Order: sequence, then structure tokens, then C-alpha cells
Amino acid sequence: MKLFTPVAAQQVTALGERRLIARIRRWLGAACPPAPFGIGDDCAVLPPSRREILVTTDPVIAGRHFDASVSPAAAGAKLLKRNLSDIAAMGGTPRSAVVSLALAPETSLAWLREFHRGLARCARTYGVSVVGGDITQAPAGFFGGFLTLLGEASGPRAVTRHGAREGDHLLVTGRLGGSLLGHHHAFSPRLEEGAWLARRREVRAMMDLSDGLAKDVRELLAPPLAPDLDLSALPVCAAAQRMSRKSGRSAIDHALNDGEDYELLLAVDGRRSIAPLLRAWKKRFPQVPLTPIGRVVRQRRSLPPLHGGFEHLVASPSKRGRR
Amino acid sequence: MKLFTPVAAQQVTALGERRLIARIRRWLGAACPPAPFGIGDDCAVLPPSRREILVTTDPVIAGRHFDASVSPAAAGAKLLKRNLSDIAAMGGTPRSAVVSLALAPETSLAWLREFHRGLARCARTYGVSVVGGDITQAPAGFFGGFLTLLGEASGPRAVTRHGAREGDHLLVTGRLGGSLLGHHHAFSPRLEEGAWLARRREVRAMMDLSDGLAKDVRELLAPPLAPDLDLSALPVCAAAQRMSRKSGRSAIDHALNDGEDYELLLAVDGRRSIAPLLRAWKKRFPQVPLTPIGRVVRQRRSLPPLHGGFEHLVASPSKRGRR
Repeated sequence: MKLFTPVAAQQVTALGERRLIARIRRWLGAACPPAPFGIGDDCAVLPPSRREILVTTDPVIAGRHFDASVSPAAAGAKLLKRNLSDIAAMGGTPRSAVVSLALAPETSLAWLREFHRGLARCARTYGVSVVGGDITQAPAGFFGGFLTLLGEASGPRAVTRHGAREGDHLLVTGRLGGSLLGHHHAFSPRLEEGAWLARRREVRAMMDLSDGLAKDVRELLAPPLAPDLDLSALPVCAAAQRMSRKSGRSAIDHALNDGEDYELLLAVDGRRSIAPLLRAWKKRFPQVPLTPIGRVVRQRRSLPPLHGGFEHLVASPSKRGRR
Repeated sequence: MKLFTPVAAQQVTALGERRLIARIRRWLGAACPPAPFGIGDDCAVLPPSRREILVTTDPVIAGRHFDASVSPAAAGAKLLKRNLSDIAAMGGTPRSAVVSLALAPETSLAWLREFHRGLARCARTYGVSVVGGDITQAPAGFFGGFLTLLGEASGPRAVTRHGAREGDHLLVTGRLGGSLLGHHHAFSPRLEEGAWLARRREVRAMMDLSDGLAKDVRELLAPPLAPDLDLSALPVCAAAQRMSRKSGRSAIDHALNDGEDYELLLAVDGRRSIAPLLRAWKKRFPQVPLTPIGRVVRQRRSLPPLHGGFEHLVASPSKRGRR
């Protein structure tokens, strides 16, 4: 299904704003409560919150976060899942989303319907209400969905990126690399895992991996702290192995630098054994690996640099069509 | 100052994402608290809220919501003020914002600095913290800022669009029309006025005027309710008079249809006199008119249609460069 259509009757402009909004509400269905708790007033009105409130925002832009090989429903789900992964990284529970669309006039209504159906299915799965939004006309050839997600801490605390100390263990959920082969839109945000980890007191800092471990780990560890990674221990995804055969780069290189893993990276108190954590995890999440990949150290010159990861702003046209 | 520059060293790509984010935090200054309460973690962490939470989202897109005649600082302030006007329309108090930027690679760093300084000044004026955001590369020639604003009800209730009844008075703040001559970015959101009105029990429904009274009033009154407006009573802005001289359309036509007034439209209990409300208003807001412009009636065929107002999705290129 094509994002843009030359047939005027099948374009968003055939409806006009008012009818398009009504259509979007229908496509969203149960994911969209009635105003003023949902779309249709100046603001959405949400109930008071006794817990800390979490807020995150991430877009999907055509040609950058998805391309023609990704179904519109998967693109719509990805818009929400990118944000869900951020809530997971704090150990939070997602609640409400607002979506701002910037649409070229020639955007296909059928494509947009499937996009919203995919978004709505994902919203229902994770208990998220779409409570508001905006539609603006964009230049020809542009499609962007900009979502802001609100959530709450699921327990007594939200786990930030800023608690790691020297000697801490570094662990990662799932397997890394090769996301371009499908994982970049087919992933499941680690919400249950994140909420469970936030309740474990030995977990000191956590984040989700979106730009690749090599780049993202620098966000968890500010100098003088640095990662001392055991690269042979990295849980490498089968997709990274497959990509390696074609690219001539190692599977570990892919695991470090591909990005869009949407797995959790965490720092765990290094003064204790991590065996109890790993045992409890295996009982609770038998299908998902939790792998120790190194320690937090004070920066020394002898550490190999971990350059790489996805750079969002490049002077030349994007090398990868989906970020 | 130009939005885009051909000089590579002056483009956003000269910095890369990490350094650009650091720069943005510096430009925002006191408007941007440290992580995890501001930019720099997977989510921003906001304190619990004992009142109802308000959420709204509106963008500014270059060539649509502003053009080269608008300074970057005014464009940045407009991004926030469009959203502040929605909070004002519910009688709320603004608190926190997240900003998603979609930037062409050739976006000028100097322009972006002034944009953020204008945004920051406006945020400080209205007590808003910029707590998070995202930067994504967009195609050449595109600049969009997508802001989501969180607020709280300022009193015991948030005033929605959905309380008007037959016989209610319709009133409007300020003066309407001619916004293209400068008001569309130089306006002051009616936050104090909205919060004050929300505490008056006779105010039943409220909204802000963004697409023009003729179009917006239909959002306040669902069939069978309709507006019976006294067009001769409309508070017409001097700018609408000036535009009328050139356009050949009446000043009232401009007041009804130009849009971007960012004034408040309200329905007030029609069973009582509005004299006490008007007297109390004049005492509290002596500089701002509050004008009765008609009543809410049951739809009858004899009412003149009030077609018009700004249409956000048009098949032909936009007739107006700034929406």
C-alpha cells in the first residue's frame, strides 16, 4: 500500500480537516475516549496522578523511520512503541498519548486508515488512550507523526539514567543488532520487564537502546565513568549474524552499532552478586535473556573506544532509509 | 535572519546531534531544568498532580505558521503561545512542555538559537519548563517544531467546549480579524482571563478562536444548537479594518474568517443577566474588551450560514503562507 496517491478522491484533502478528524476518531475506535477526555476539545482532561508523571516524545517520519517495505499498520504501531520503550526504560506504566500529524496533501486516506488501525491496536494492547492531536498540512512528499506519551511510575520510583557507579555490573535484555531486517518495527517494548526491574533495589540506572549500545552506553556513564565491556559476551541477534555475512562487518559490530534494538541497558549494584537477580529474572521472564556484558570502570586510556551508533543529523543524505 | 543557510559550518549538521542537544539546553537556559526533570533522560519525570491534568499539542511549520517576515524569536514564542492559548481556553495553568523538532540539514544554527531564545523567554514569562524533546532530520527545505504542553486546572474545574445550552449568551474577548498583519505571532494568550472566567459559575463553555469565529463557533455548538450572532456587535480589530480597505471584503468578514485571533469565545448562562459578569470583568481586565455577540438558539432555517474560517487541508497550494 502506497503512502501517497495521485488520485485526488483518495487523498486526505478530499475530506477536509473536520471530516478527516472524525474519520481518525473512528479508525482509533476504543483507543480514543470521548472529549474532554479524548480528541475534541482545546485540551484533553486527564485525571489527577498520585504518582510521578513520565513524559516522552518521539516521531516517525517517512523515509527515515520507515520505508515502503514497512506496512502502514506497522508504521503506526512503531510510532507508539518507540515512545513505549522510553516509558519501559524508566520502569513506568503508559497512560495517554497525543499525536501531531504533518501530512502532504497527496497522503493516501487508505494508507492513513491502516496507520491509525495499527496505532490503535498497539494502544489497546498496552492500555494507552489517544487523547488528542493535531493535523497540519506539510509540503509534498512529507509524512511525519509526532507522538507524546504520558505515563506514571509503576512503583515507588522511576529509574533514571543517572545512578551508575564504579564497579556496577552492566546488563542488557534480549539480543542486539540486525534490526534493519525487521526488528526495528516488529519489536515489543520491554514494559513488563522495565517495571519489574524498577522494583529491584539493586538496579541503579536504566535506559533503552535506540542508537546502538556503543553510542547509548555513553548516556548511562558520564566521564570519568566508562564501560568495560566483554564483547564476547554480547547477546548477538541472529539477524546481526545474517547481516554480517553480507556486510563484511562482524556480527558484534552490528550488535554494537545498528541501533533500534529497543532493549534495556542497566547498571546493577556491583557490591553484590548478580546471581539472585538473574535467577529471579529467569523465573519471571524465561523467554527473554538478561545478559551481563561488562562493568562500570573509571576511564583509563587502555579501554578500546566504542565509536559508532546512529547519528541523527548528517550533512549527506541519510545512509539508511528507515531512521 | 534566514532559516536555511548554504554555508556548511553554519548548519545544524556541523554540530551533530549530541552537541546540538547540549547547545539547545544552553539556549533554553533557566527554562530547561536538569534531568530527570528536564531534557536528558528517556522520559522527563514530573511531580504528581492533585488537579486534573490538561494536555494539548500544536506545531509551527515554516511556510505555514510563519514566514520570512517573522523573526525566529517570534516563531519560537508562537510555538509555545499557540499551545498556551489552548490551556487558557480550559481556564488552566501551564506547567511543562516537550518539543520535537524536524529539521532540514541546512537549517541555520544562528536561526535555531534565536528560535529557542524566543521560546525560552516566552516559557519563563508563563512559568513553563521545557522538560524534553527530540530532534530528527527532515527533508531539505522543511522546518517543523511540534510542542506538547501539559498544564493543570487552575481552580475546581476545567471549562470544556461542551456545556452551552439554548438561550445562553455568546461572548468574546478582545478584538477579531486582521491577524495576518502581526497579531498571529504577537498575541498574548488569555491565560489570566481564562482562569478568571473558569471560576465564574455562569460560564458554561469556552474555547479559543484559532480558525476564525465563523468556523470555530460550530465547535462550541453542536446541532441542533446554533449561534444567532449580532454581526454589528462584533468587536472588530483595527487591523481587520486596514485589511478590508485592500481586500474589498468587509471588516466583519475579516473578523469572522481570518483566524488566529487567539481570543476566547464563551457561552454564559442565559437565564441570568450578564451585567454582573461584565462589571466584574471590567474591573479585573480594564484593557481587554469582553463583548456579547449573540445568543445560542435552536437551529432554524432562517439563520444566515456562517461559512468560512481556515481550512487546514487544501488540495491546492496554501493561499496563505503563515498557517
